Amino acid sequence: MDRANLKVVVVGGGLVGSLIATYFGQRGYNVHLYEYREDIRTSELVQGKSINLALSVRGLKALEGIGIADSVRAYGIPMYGRMIHSVTGKTRPIPYDPVYQQCIYSVGRKHINEVLLNEAEKMPNLHLNFDRKLVALDLEEKKLKFKSAQGKIEEVRADLIIGADGAFSAVRSELLKRSRINFSQTYIEHGYLELAIPPENNHKMQGNHLHIWPRDEFMMIALPNQDDSWTVTLFMPHTQFSMLDKKDKLLRFFRDKFPDAIDLIGEKSLIDTYFSTKPSFLISIKVSKYNYKDHVVLVGDAAHAMVPFYGQGMNAGFEDCRLLDDFLHNRGLTIREGLEEYSKSRNPNAEAICDLAMYNYIEMRHLVNTTSFIVRKFFDNCLYRIVPSLWIPLYQSVTFSNMDYLNCIKNKKWQDMSLEKFLYAFGVTSAALAFITMFKITTK
Amino acid sequence: MDRANLKVVVVGGGLVGSLIATYFGQRGYNVHLYEYREDIRTSELVQGKSINLALSVRGLKALEGIGIADSVRAYGIPMYGRMIHSVTGKTRPIPYDPVYQQCIYSVGRKHINEVLLNEAEKMPNLHLNFDRKLVALDLEEKKLKFKSAQGKIEEVRADLIIGADGAFSAVRSELLKRSRINFSQTYIEHGYLELAIPPENNHKMQGNHLHIWPRDEFMMIALPNQDDSWTVTLFMPHTQFSMLDKKDKLLRFFRDKFPDAIDLIGEKSLIDTYFSTKPSFLISIKVSKYNYKDHVVLVGDAAHAMVPFYGQGMNAGFEDCRLLDDFLHNRGLTIREGLEEYSKSRNPNAEAICDLAMYNYIEMRHLVNTTSFIVRKFFDNCLYRIVPSLWIPLYQSVTFSNMDYLNCIKNKKWQDMSLEKFLYAFGVTSAALAFITMFKITTK
Repeated sequence: MDRANLKVVVVGGGLVGSLIATYFGQRGYNVHLYEYREDIRTSELVQGKSINLALSVRGLKALEGIGIADSVRAYGIPMYGRMIHSVTGKTRPIPYDPVYQQCIYSVGRKHINEVLLNEAEKMPNLHLNFDRKLVALDLEEKKLKFKSAQGKIEEVRADLIIGADGAFSAVRSELLKRSRINFSQTYIEHGYLELAIPPENNHKMQGNHLHIWPRDEFMMIALPNQDDSWTVTLFMPHTQFSMLDKKDKLLRFFRDKFPDAIDLIGEKSLIDTYFSTKPSFLISIKVSKYNYKDHVVLVGDAAHAMVPFYGQGMNAGFEDCRLLDDFLHNRGLTIREGLEEYSKSRNPNAEAICDLAMYNYIEMRHLVNTTSFIVRKFFDNCLYRIVPSLWIPLYQSVTFSNMDYLNCIKNKKWQDMSLEKFLYAFGVTSAALAFITMFKITTK
Repeated sequence: MDRANLKVVVVGGGLVGSLIATYFGQRGYNVHLYEYREDIRTSELVQGKSINLALSVRGLKALEGIGIADSVRAYGIPMYGRMIHSVTGKTRPIPYDPVYQQCIYSVGRKHINEVLLNEAEKMPNLHLNFDRKLVALDLEEKKLKFKSAQGKIEEVRADLIIGADGAFSAVRSELLKRSRINFSQTYIEHGYLELAIPPENNHKMQGNHLHIWPRDEFMMIALPNQDDSWTVTLFMPHTQFSMLDKKDKLLRFFRDKFPDAIDLIGEKSLIDTYFSTKPSFLISIKVSKYNYKDHVVLVGDAAHAMVPFYGQGMNAGFEDCRLLDDFLHNRGLTIREGLEEYSKSRNPNAEAICDLAMYNYIEMRHLVNTTSFIVRKFFDNCLYRIVPSLWIPLYQSVTFSNMDYLNCIKNKKWQDMSLEKFLYAFGVTSAALAFITMFKITTK
């Protein structure tokens, strides 16, 4: 079938939705994107999650596929490492990649979304529709109903539906009714709230780093913005947010846990923002199958929402697009086969990065403070320096390679095992020898 | 408020629904039970899952609460242990409780359901409604709509809604929309299919045992029925069911894996039943919260569906009823407080038994064949015999006690740890001593 006659409906025009639409547009399909918000390029207020993101190798490779990696990279602010703030305000850098000096890029969500929508709009076969809410979906018949801001209902018939409608995906809800699919949604105890360091305090921040204030049960991070401001995100248990319900409690807490941050954010701004914002929730979502026949497929958060602690949410979503495109167009498969293979191969990797993100949640808050973490990091970096092709530390393989997420974990497990096995074998042998010796002595 | 003026709507009239309705009926509430199937007492065909179940201490204690434990126990067929069938047809008993000779009871699902409905019907304040399907539910307003078999819609307003509508609970779907609730549904690779050993072969089966044919990837079990027949359940991967699609393949498979069972079931009956039945799916479901304010609460499979390998599905559901009754009526709490406390205390225990059931799935199929399992069982039984109050093996605490499921696991972990810690400490010490010795030698 001629691709121009194949109608692809993309539900969701966020980062992943606009990228996958562009991929399909460039392949020559008849693409229709429906987004329930207004056009982000003309709207005053940006709704949605955190406004700056860390773009890394996987995301860039996916953007390369539609030819915009270089321009986005040039716009982003490179971050070469973590900058750890101690309780006393002392800072200590931990480079992400001490060997090759690779970096990740701080980019604005709004900016990337705009670039992607502009790219999408270039094609005559790609149609953008905003202010359209999905209100009904028949996956068997591939029929969708969208409601406009004016309340008008539009009925659409698709050949293929792509669900890029985020963590609370309506497309996914329908998919789950179709067949035996495992599903889980997990809210974590911690919420987050965004604060800001104004441009005039930029000189107090060491540039080109992702700043972290790890405090075990609490954590704060800061990423640089284009306008010299920094976006600060405070993570803590919802119970703690509820407890800090008065100005003096909040200030006492900050003086105790993040004393240097009060000066950076500014006392007034801290109080104003904290008490005018409700903390957001964090959820992790897994779905065991992403497609139903050749009717529908999920990408991005709709398929695998993760907690933000590995900076891989957007990168993994972008990688979905590159892989889906690859499975459908470079492997000689039918659309149905391509979707099945994409789902089968992508699912375990997506679940792996969801798990890693959860694990890093603990690492960022807590482990970076422990001796064993620092020792392991030292050990990792030494081996990485000596045998970089054999011993790639976990963070490096996730962030600076396109290795399957699952293999990143297997790799890490192999590294952990190598060490532990050695010690365990040594322990058991010694114990056995001791037993034999004892036995010999007692039976003499 | 007078309980008689409090309208409690129970959705679902299966085992747990009819028990919780009776509990509330006996407490004097105005109880209305709605079941979407016809009255099981007058229906010819029993729909639903497996027709015999293993009733144990928790279930009995909950039945005691409404005064019917003794009669149900008298009706059930005691099973004092597992009877393991080897591939050669040899049998080997493994008693459940070698110390106190405690047993579990094989009971028919239909029988218990009938007894419970009869008990429920005794009360003038308890109203049973069959052939009523829940079609709409507003949890905020506590309004329900039921559709009769004739298509008539009935609107009901409740003071409290109890969701006892099973693994695919419609009440739960609404609850999940209300607040931040973690949820997971997991289908396992294995399905099951029921076969039967006819009464005339009863003499070939060792009575008063739960028979097991453990074959690693496959497993078959048999439980005795009142009429001297046995219900046989074959568990295997869905892929295996699909592969056995011809008579000769099925017979070859049985001759290879379960040779003695062909004679017991009968070749013709085996073939007829196998090819006229579709294997059923097995699902495990967890929900992190069971109530919404004082509007609704979940019990039984709606709250925690588990795979059937610990024989605790019904027992846990019955225990829910006893505990919910206790939290609401014996602790001086308001209904809302009672529901919150019930949910908080019950959830980790329900999730624990879901996990244990999954674990036992492996144990029953596989571990019972391994040397380490037999050694551990021996070790467990020895210690149980010597210090029965200190060392209660896991199976005993789950099946023959009312100890919180979570404590059963903690107890087991403590037992595992006690042994491992000892060995580990021994290994590390020896290794350290060896190092010191080596060091002394090399520096001499």
